[in-house]
Amino acid sequence: MSNFTYKVYGDVFSGNCYKVKLLLHQLQKPYEWIPVDILQQESRTAAFLQRNPNGKIPVLEFASQEYLFESNAIMYFLSEGTDFLPNTRLQRSQVLQWLFFEQYSHEPYIASSRYLIRYLKGAEKYKTVLEEKSKPGYAALDVMEQHLSRNQFFVGNKYTIADIGLYAYTHVAEEGGFDLSRYSAIKSWFAKIESQPHYIAMG
Amino acid sequence: MSNFTYKVYGDVFSGNCYKVKLLLHQLQKPYEWIPVDILQQESRTAAFLQRNPNGKIPVLEFASQEYLFESNAIMYFLSEGTDFLPNTRLQRSQVLQWLFFEQYSHEPYIASSRYLIRYLKGAEKYKTVLEEKSKPGYAALDVMEQHLSRNQFFVGNKYTIADIGLYAYTHVAEEGGFDLSRYSAIKSWFAKIESQPHYIAMG
Repeated sequence: MSNFTYKVYGDVFSGNCYKVKLLLHQLQKPYEWIPVDILQQESRTAAFLQRNPNGKIPVLEFASQEYLFESNAIMYFLSEGTDFLPNTRLQRSQVLQWLFFEQYSHEPYIASSRYLIRYLKGAEKYKTVLEEKSKPGYAALDVMEQHLSRNQFFVGNKYTIADIGLYAYTHVAEEGGFDLSRYSAIKSWFAKIESQPHYIAMG
Repeated sequence: MSNFTYKVYGDVFSGNCYKVKLLLHQLQKPYEWIPVDILQQESRTAAFLQRNPNGKIPVLEFASQEYLFESNAIMYFLSEGTDFLPNTRLQRSQVLQWLFFEQYSHEPYIASSRYLIRYLKGAEKYKTVLEEKSKPGYAALDVMEQHLSRNQFFVGNKYTIADIGLYAYTHVAEEGGFDLSRYSAIKSWFAKIESQPHYIAMG
Protein backbone atom coordinates (compact mmCIF):
# COMPACT_ATOMS: atom_id res chain seq x y z
CA MET A 1 0.00 0.00 0.00
CA SER A 2 1.58 3.26 -1.13
CA ASN A 3 1.61 6.36 1.07
CA PHE A 4 1.43 8.55 -2.03
CA THR A 5 -1.68 9.81 -3.73
CA TYR A 6 -0.03 9.67 -7.14
CA LYS A 7 2.60 7.67 -8.93
CA VAL A 8 4.24 9.25 -11.97
CA TYR A 9 5.92 7.08 -14.60
CA GLY A 10 8.48 9.22 -16.37
CA ASP A 11 11.96 10.37 -17.30
CA VAL A 12 13.21 13.46 -15.44
CA PHE A 13 14.91 14.88 -18.55
CA SER A 14 11.78 14.57 -20.74
CA GLY A 15 10.03 17.94 -21.00
CA ASN A 16 6.63 16.24 -21.04
CA CYS A 17 7.44 14.46 -17.77
CA TYR A 18 9.02 17.57 -16.25
CA LYS A 19 5.71 19.45 -16.75
CA VAL A 20 4.03 17.03 -14.35
CA LYS A 21 6.93 17.07 -11.86
CA LEU A 22 7.15 20.88 -11.78
CA LEU A 23 3.39 21.26 -11.29
CA LEU A 24 3.29 18.63 -8.50
CA HIS A 25 6.13 20.48 -6.75
CA GLN A 26 4.43 23.83 -7.13
CA LEU A 27 1.17 22.34 -5.83
CA GLN A 28 3.19 20.78 -2.98
CA LYS A 29 1.57 17.39 -3.65
CA PRO A 30 3.48 14.28 -2.62
CA TYR A 31 4.10 11.71 -5.34
CA GLU A 32 6.20 8.69 -6.14
CA TRP A 33 8.36 8.91 -9.27
CA ILE A 34 8.90 5.69 -11.21
CA PRO A 35 11.73 6.05 -13.75
CA VAL A 36 10.99 4.74 -17.24
CA ASP A 37 13.82 4.43 -19.77
CA ILE A 38 12.29 4.86 -23.20
CA LEU A 39 15.58 4.02 -24.95
CA GLN A 40 15.35 0.59 -23.27
CA GLN A 41 11.78 0.26 -24.62
CA GLU A 42 10.42 0.31 -21.06
CA SER A 43 7.34 2.21 -22.24
CA ARG A 44 6.53 -0.57 -24.72
CA THR A 45 6.31 -3.56 -22.34
CA ALA A 46 2.99 -5.38 -21.90
CA ALA A 47 2.78 -4.10 -18.31
CA PHE A 48 3.37 -0.50 -19.41
CA LEU A 49 0.84 -0.71 -22.26
CA GLN A 50 -1.79 -1.55 -19.63
CA ARG A 51 -1.09 1.93 -18.20
CA ASN A 52 -0.94 3.74 -21.53
CA PRO A 53 -1.93 1.80 -24.66
CA ASN A 54 -0.09 4.45 -26.67
CA GLY A 55 3.23 3.49 -25.00
CA LYS A 56 4.34 6.99 -24.02
CA ILE A 57 5.41 8.79 -20.85
CA PRO A 58 4.38 10.45 -18.58
CA VAL A 59 1.56 8.43 -17.03
CA LEU A 60 -0.19 9.38 -13.78
CA GLU A 61 -1.38 6.49 -11.62
CA PHE A 62 -4.06 7.01 -9.01
CA ALA A 63 -4.37 5.11 -5.72
CA SER A 64 -7.40 3.45 -7.37
CA GLN A 65 -5.00 2.04 -10.00
CA GLU A 66 -6.63 4.08 -12.71
CA TYR A 67 -4.30 5.85 -15.13
CA LEU A 68 -4.15 9.10 -17.03
CA PHE A 69 -1.75 9.77 -19.91
CA GLU A 70 -0.80 12.79 -22.06
CA SER A 71 1.21 15.37 -20.09
CA ASN A 72 -1.16 18.26 -20.76
CA ALA A 73 -4.24 16.27 -19.74
CA ILE A 74 -2.44 15.27 -16.52
CA MET A 75 -1.66 18.96 -15.84
CA TYR A 76 -5.32 19.82 -16.46
CA PHE A 77 -6.37 17.17 -13.95
CA LEU A 78 -3.91 18.31 -11.28
CA SER A 79 -4.62 22.01 -11.72
CA GLU A 80 -8.42 22.10 -11.93
CA GLY A 81 -9.69 24.10 -8.97
CA THR A 82 -6.25 25.59 -8.20
CA ASP A 83 -4.58 28.91 -9.08
CA PHE A 84 -2.75 27.16 -11.94
CA LEU A 85 -5.95 26.97 -14.05
CA PRO A 86 -8.08 30.10 -14.56
CA ASN A 87 -11.62 30.16 -13.20
CA THR A 88 -13.37 31.47 -16.32
CA ARG A 89 -14.44 29.24 -19.18
CA LEU A 90 -12.82 31.42 -21.85
CA GLN A 91 -9.49 31.57 -20.01
CA ARG A 92 -9.52 27.80 -19.33
CA SER A 93 -10.10 27.32 -23.05
CA GLN A 94 -7.24 29.71 -23.85
CA VAL A 95 -4.97 27.64 -21.59
CA LEU A 96 -5.95 24.57 -23.61
CA GLN A 97 -5.47 26.49 -26.87
CA TRP A 98 -1.82 27.11 -25.96
CA LEU A 99 -1.35 23.52 -24.74
CA PHE A 100 -2.68 22.17 -28.06
CA PHE A 101 -0.41 24.65 -29.86
CA GLU A 102 2.45 23.21 -27.80
CA GLN A 103 1.73 19.61 -28.76
CA TYR A 104 1.01 20.24 -32.44
CA SER A 105 3.13 23.21 -33.52
CA HIS A 106 6.01 23.27 -31.01
CA GLU A 107 6.84 19.84 -29.52
CA PRO A 108 7.25 17.96 -32.86
CA TYR A 109 9.98 20.41 -33.88
CA ILE A 110 11.62 21.75 -30.73
CA ALA A 111 11.37 18.74 -28.40
CA SER A 112 11.89 16.32 -31.21
CA SER A 113 15.13 18.01 -32.35
CA ARG A 114 16.45 17.85 -28.78
CA TYR A 115 15.51 14.17 -28.62
CA LEU A 116 17.45 13.38 -31.80
CA ILE A 117 20.51 15.28 -30.57
CA ARG A 118 20.50 14.65 -26.82
CA TYR A 119 18.95 11.18 -26.52
CA LEU A 120 19.91 9.58 -29.82
CA LYS A 121 23.21 11.50 -30.24
CA GLY A 122 22.13 11.95 -33.85
CA ALA A 123 23.19 15.52 -34.76
CA GLU A 124 25.01 14.12 -37.82
CA LYS A 125 22.82 11.11 -38.60
CA TYR A 126 19.60 13.17 -38.52
CA LYS A 127 21.03 16.33 -40.13
CA THR A 128 18.33 16.50 -42.86
CA VAL A 129 15.46 15.85 -40.44
CA LEU A 130 16.85 18.47 -38.06
CA GLU A 131 17.05 21.00 -40.90
CA GLU A 132 13.40 20.30 -41.78
CA LYS A 133 12.39 20.89 -38.17
CA SER A 134 14.22 24.20 -37.93
CA LYS A 135 11.78 26.48 -39.79
CA PRO A 136 8.56 25.30 -38.08
CA GLY A 137 10.40 25.28 -34.72
CA TYR A 138 11.44 28.93 -35.12
CA ALA A 139 7.90 29.75 -36.31
CA ALA A 140 6.55 28.42 -32.99
CA LEU A 141 9.14 30.46 -31.07
CA ASP A 142 8.12 33.55 -33.08
CA VAL A 143 4.45 33.05 -32.12
CA MET A 144 5.49 32.77 -28.45
CA GLU A 145 7.79 35.82 -28.63
CA GLN A 146 5.06 37.94 -30.20
CA HIS A 147 2.55 36.95 -27.52
CA LEU A 148 5.01 37.42 -24.65
CA SER A 149 6.14 40.82 -25.91
CA ARG A 150 2.61 42.04 -25.07
CA ASN A 151 1.70 39.77 -22.14
CA GLN A 152 3.38 38.72 -18.89
CA PHE A 153 2.20 35.13 -19.22
CA PHE A 154 0.20 33.15 -21.80
CA VAL A 155 -3.29 33.55 -20.33
CA GLY A 156 -4.83 36.32 -18.22
CA ASN A 157 -1.39 37.74 -17.29
CA LYS A 158 -1.13 35.04 -14.63
CA TYR A 159 1.14 32.01 -14.32
CA THR A 160 -0.86 28.91 -15.37
CA ILE A 161 -0.28 25.41 -16.73
CA ALA A 162 -0.10 27.01 -20.21
CA ASP A 163 3.21 28.54 -19.12
CA ILE A 164 4.46 25.28 -17.61
CA GLY A 165 3.48 23.42 -20.78
CA LEU A 166 5.39 25.79 -23.05
CA TYR A 167 8.33 26.35 -20.70
CA ALA A 168 9.17 22.64 -20.43
CA TYR A 169 10.75 22.25 -23.87
CA THR A 170 11.36 25.93 -24.71
CA HIS A 171 13.84 26.49 -21.89
CA VAL A 172 15.97 23.60 -23.20
CA ALA A 173 15.43 24.40 -26.90
CA GLU A 174 19.14 25.17 -27.31
CA GLU A 175 19.85 21.48 -26.60
CA GLY A 176 17.91 20.89 -29.83
CA GLY A 177 19.98 23.40 -31.78
CA PHE A 178 17.61 26.39 -31.51
CA ASP A 179 19.31 29.73 -30.87
CA LEU A 180 17.27 31.73 -28.35
CA SER A 181 19.50 34.82 -28.31
CA ARG A 182 17.05 37.06 -30.19
CA TYR A 183 14.02 35.95 -28.12
CA SER A 184 14.16 38.55 -25.36
CA ALA A 185 10.49 38.30 -24.32
CA ILE A 186 10.79 34.51 -24.04
CA LYS A 187 13.93 34.88 -21.94
CA SER A 188 12.35 37.35 -19.55
CA TRP A 189 9.35 34.99 -19.26
CA PHE A 190 11.81 32.19 -18.32
CA ALA A 191 13.02 34.37 -15.44
CA LYS A 192 9.46 35.02 -14.27
CA ILE A 193 8.73 31.29 -14.22
CA GLU A 194 11.98 30.46 -12.48
CA SER A 195 11.12 32.87 -9.67
CA GLN A 196 7.69 31.30 -8.98
CA PRO A 197 7.21 29.68 -5.54
CA HIS A 198 8.40 26.06 -5.33
CA TYR A 199 9.98 26.14 -8.79
CA ILE A 200 12.38 23.26 -9.41
CA ALA A 201 14.78 22.84 -12.31
CA MET A 202 14.53 19.94 -14.78
CA GLY A 203 16.39 16.79 -13.80
CA MET B 1 -23.77 43.90 -36.25
CA SER B 2 -23.97 40.14 -36.63
CA ASN B 3 -27.00 38.17 -35.50
CA PHE B 4 -24.77 35.22 -34.70
CA THR B 5 -23.10 34.50 -31.40
CA TYR B 6 -20.12 32.92 -33.12
CA LYS B 7 -18.23 33.21 -36.37
CA VAL B 8 -16.17 30.22 -37.46
CA TYR B 9 -13.28 30.66 -39.89
CA GLY B 10 -12.72 27.33 -41.59
CA ASP B 11 -12.78 24.88 -44.48
CA VAL B 12 -15.69 22.43 -44.48
CA PHE B 13 -13.51 19.54 -45.68
CA SER B 14 -10.88 20.03 -42.96
CA GLY B 15 -11.43 17.54 -40.14
CA ASN B 16 -10.30 20.10 -37.56
CA CYS B 17 -12.92 22.57 -38.82
CA TYR B 18 -15.58 19.86 -39.14
CA LYS B 19 -15.19 19.09 -35.41
CA VAL B 20 -16.39 22.60 -34.59
CA LYS B 21 -19.18 22.52 -37.19
CA LEU B 22 -20.50 19.13 -36.03
CA LEU B 23 -20.49 20.17 -32.37
CA LEU B 24 -22.23 23.50 -33.10
CA HIS B 25 -24.92 21.59 -35.02
CA GLN B 26 -25.35 19.06 -32.26
CA LEU B 27 -25.57 21.86 -29.69
CA GLN B 28 -28.06 23.60 -32.02
CA LYS B 29 -26.10 26.86 -31.74
CA PRO B 30 -26.39 29.35 -34.59
CA TYR B 31 -23.12 30.45 -36.19
CA GLU B 32 -21.75 32.16 -39.25
CA TRP B 33 -19.24 30.17 -41.33
CA ILE B 34 -16.48 32.13 -43.05
CA PRO B 35 -14.67 30.00 -45.65
CA VAL B 36 -10.88 30.15 -45.57
CA ASP B 37 -8.88 28.61 -48.43
CA ILE B 38 -5.56 27.51 -46.98
CA LEU B 39 -4.20 26.57 -50.42
CA GLN B 40 -4.64 30.25 -51.36
CA GLN B 41 -2.70 31.21 -48.19
CA GLU B 42 -5.82 32.87 -46.76
CA SER B 43 -4.83 31.76 -43.25
CA ARG B 44 -1.48 33.60 -43.58
CA THR B 45 -2.72 37.13 -44.34
CA ALA B 46 -2.01 39.93 -41.87
CA ALA B 47 -5.74 40.14 -41.07
CA PHE B 48 -5.97 36.42 -40.40
CA LEU B 49 -2.84 36.39 -38.22
CA GLN B 50 -4.60 38.89 -35.96
CA ARG B 51 -7.16 36.13 -35.32
CA ASN B 52 -4.64 33.32 -34.95
CA PRO B 53 -0.95 34.23 -34.83
CA ASN B 54 -0.22 30.59 -35.70
CA GLY B 55 -2.01 30.96 -39.07
CA LYS B 56 -4.21 27.89 -38.83
CA ILE B 57 -7.91 27.10 -39.06
CA PRO B 58 -10.39 26.78 -37.42
CA VAL B 59 -10.75 30.00 -35.43
CA LEU B 60 -13.79 30.86 -33.34
CA GLU B 61 -14.71 34.55 -33.17
CA PHE B 62 -16.88 35.88 -30.36
CA ALA B 63 -19.29 38.80 -30.61
CA SER B 64 -16.75 40.64 -28.42
CA GLN B 65 -14.23 40.20 -31.28
CA GLU B 66 -12.09 37.96 -29.15
CA TYR B 67 -10.76 34.81 -30.79
CA LEU B 68 -10.04 31.22 -29.84
CA PHE B 69 -7.95 28.85 -31.98
CA GLU B 70 -7.05 25.14 -31.88
CA SER B 71 -10.03 22.93 -32.77
CA ASN B 72 -9.95 20.91 -29.56
CA ALA B 73 -9.76 23.99 -27.34
CA ILE B 74 -12.74 25.44 -29.25
CA MET B 75 -14.67 22.21 -28.65
CA TYR B 76 -13.79 22.38 -24.95
CA PHE B 77 -15.12 25.93 -24.81
CA LEU B 78 -18.37 25.10 -26.60
CA SER B 79 -19.03 21.91 -24.64
CA GLU B 80 -18.26 22.97 -21.06
CA GLY B 81 -21.44 22.66 -19.03
CA THR B 82 -23.19 20.53 -21.69
CA ASP B 83 -23.69 16.77 -22.13
CA PHE B 84 -20.75 16.70 -24.56
CA LEU B 85 -18.22 17.16 -21.73
CA PRO B 86 -18.40 14.89 -18.63
CA ASN B 87 -19.12 16.43 -15.26
CA THR B 88 -16.35 14.74 -13.28
CA ARG B 89 -12.79 16.03 -13.20
CA LEU B 90 -11.25 12.66 -14.04
CA GLN B 91 -13.54 12.12 -17.02
CA ARG B 92 -12.99 15.66 -18.31
CA SER B 93 -9.26 14.96 -18.08
CA GLN B 94 -9.73 11.68 -19.95
CA VAL B 95 -11.55 13.57 -22.71
CA LEU B 96 -8.53 15.87 -22.97
CA GLN B 97 -6.18 12.86 -22.86
CA TRP B 98 -7.82 11.49 -26.02
CA LEU B 99 -7.88 14.92 -27.68
CA PHE B 100 -4.14 15.35 -27.05
CA PHE B 101 -3.61 11.81 -28.36
CA GLU B 102 -5.54 12.90 -31.45
CA GLN B 103 -3.38 15.95 -32.10
CA TYR B 104 -0.03 14.32 -31.35
CA SER B 105 -0.30 10.65 -32.33
CA HIS B 106 -3.14 10.57 -34.89
CA GLU B 107 -3.56 13.84 -36.82
CA PRO B 108 0.09 14.19 -38.01
CA TYR B 109 -0.18 10.80 -39.73
CA ILE B 110 -3.81 10.23 -40.65
CA ALA B 111 -5.00 13.77 -41.40
CA SER B 112 -1.68 14.73 -42.88
CA SER B 113 -1.69 11.80 -45.35
CA ARG B 114 -5.18 12.79 -46.48
CA TYR B 115 -4.00 16.38 -46.90
CA LEU B 116 -1.10 15.32 -49.13
CA ILE B 117 -3.34 13.11 -51.27
CA ARG B 118 -6.64 15.00 -51.33
CA TYR B 119 -5.57 18.65 -51.11
CA LEU B 120 -2.12 18.57 -52.71
CA LYS B 121 -2.88 15.67 -55.12
CA GLY B 122 0.52 14.34 -54.07
CA ALA B 123 0.08 10.53 -53.84
CA GLU B 124 3.08 10.10 -56.15
CA LYS B 125 5.12 13.16 -55.22
CA TYR B 126 4.91 12.41 -51.48
CA LYS B 127 5.17 8.62 -51.75
CA THR B 128 8.09 8.36 -49.27
CA VAL B 129 6.52 10.71 -46.73
CA LEU B 130 3.23 8.80 -47.01
CA GLU B 131 5.05 5.52 -46.41
CA GLU B 132 6.69 6.98 -43.28
CA LYS B 133 3.29 8.07 -41.98
CA SER B 134 1.71 4.67 -42.50
CA LYS B 135 3.11 2.78 -39.49
CA PRO B 136 2.41 5.46 -36.83
CA GLY B 137 -1.02 6.07 -38.43
CA TYR B 138 -1.98 2.40 -38.11
CA ALA B 139 -0.55 2.38 -34.56
CA ALA B 140 -3.00 5.16 -33.66
CA LEU B 141 -5.87 3.23 -35.27
CA ASP B 142 -4.82 0.14 -33.29
CA VAL B 143 -4.97 2.08 -30.01
CA MET B 144 -8.47 3.29 -30.93
CA GLU B 145 -9.64 -0.18 -32.01
CA GLN B 146 -8.41 -1.73 -28.77
CA HIS B 147 -10.20 0.88 -26.67
CA LEU B 148 -13.43 0.71 -28.69
CA SER B 149 -13.51 -3.08 -28.59
CA ARG B 150 -14.11 -2.73 -24.83
CA ASN B 151 -15.98 0.58 -24.67
CA GLN B 152 -18.95 2.12 -26.48
CA PHE B 153 -17.30 5.54 -26.67
CA PHE B 154 -13.95 7.02 -25.60
CA VAL B 155 -14.88 8.29 -22.13
CA GLY B 156 -17.48 7.07 -19.64
CA ASN B 157 -19.35 5.08 -22.29
CA LYS B 158 -21.02 8.30 -23.39
CA TYR B 159 -20.72 10.35 -26.57
CA THR B 160 -18.43 13.36 -25.85
CA ILE B 161 -16.14 15.77 -27.68
CA ALA B 162 -13.43 13.07 -27.43
CA ASP B 163 -15.48 11.06 -29.94
CA ILE B 164 -16.04 14.06 -32.20
CA GLY B 165 -12.32 14.88 -32.07
CA LEU B 166 -11.27 11.38 -33.11
CA TYR B 167 -14.11 10.79 -35.56
CA ALA B 168 -13.32 13.88 -37.65
CA TYR B 169 -10.24 12.49 -39.40
CA THR B 170 -10.72 8.77 -38.70
CA HIS B 171 -13.94 8.49 -40.71
CA VAL B 172 -12.14 9.87 -43.77
CA ALA B 173 -8.85 8.02 -43.13
CA GLU B 174 -9.33 6.03 -46.33
CA GLU B 175 -8.91 9.28 -48.29
CA GLY B 176 -5.38 9.28 -46.82
CA GLY B 177 -4.72 5.72 -47.93
CA PHE B 178 -5.53 3.95 -44.65
CA ASP B 179 -7.47 0.69 -45.01
CA LEU B 180 -10.12 0.49 -42.30
CA SER B 181 -11.51 -2.92 -43.29
CA ARG B 182 -10.08 -4.77 -40.29
CA TYR B 183 -11.17 -2.12 -37.77
CA SER B 184 -14.60 -3.46 -36.86
CA ALA B 185 -14.89 -1.70 -33.48
CA ILE B 186 -14.00 1.63 -35.09
CA LYS B 187 -16.59 1.06 -37.82
CA SER B 188 -19.35 0.23 -35.37
CA TRP B 189 -18.37 3.38 -33.38
CA PHE B 190 -18.76 5.39 -36.64
CA ALA B 191 -22.34 4.10 -36.89
CA LYS B 192 -23.07 5.08 -33.28
CA ILE B 193 -21.81 8.61 -33.91
CA GLU B 194 -23.70 8.93 -37.19
CA SER B 195 -26.94 8.07 -35.40
CA GLN B 196 -26.55 10.80 -32.74
CA PRO B 197 -29.14 13.60 -32.71
CA HIS B 198 -28.38 16.47 -35.11
CA TYR B 199 -25.43 14.67 -36.70
CA ILE B 200 -24.33 16.21 -39.98
CA ALA B 201 -21.86 14.79 -42.50
CA MET B 202 -18.61 16.53 -43.39
CA GLY B 203 -18.82 19.05 -46.21
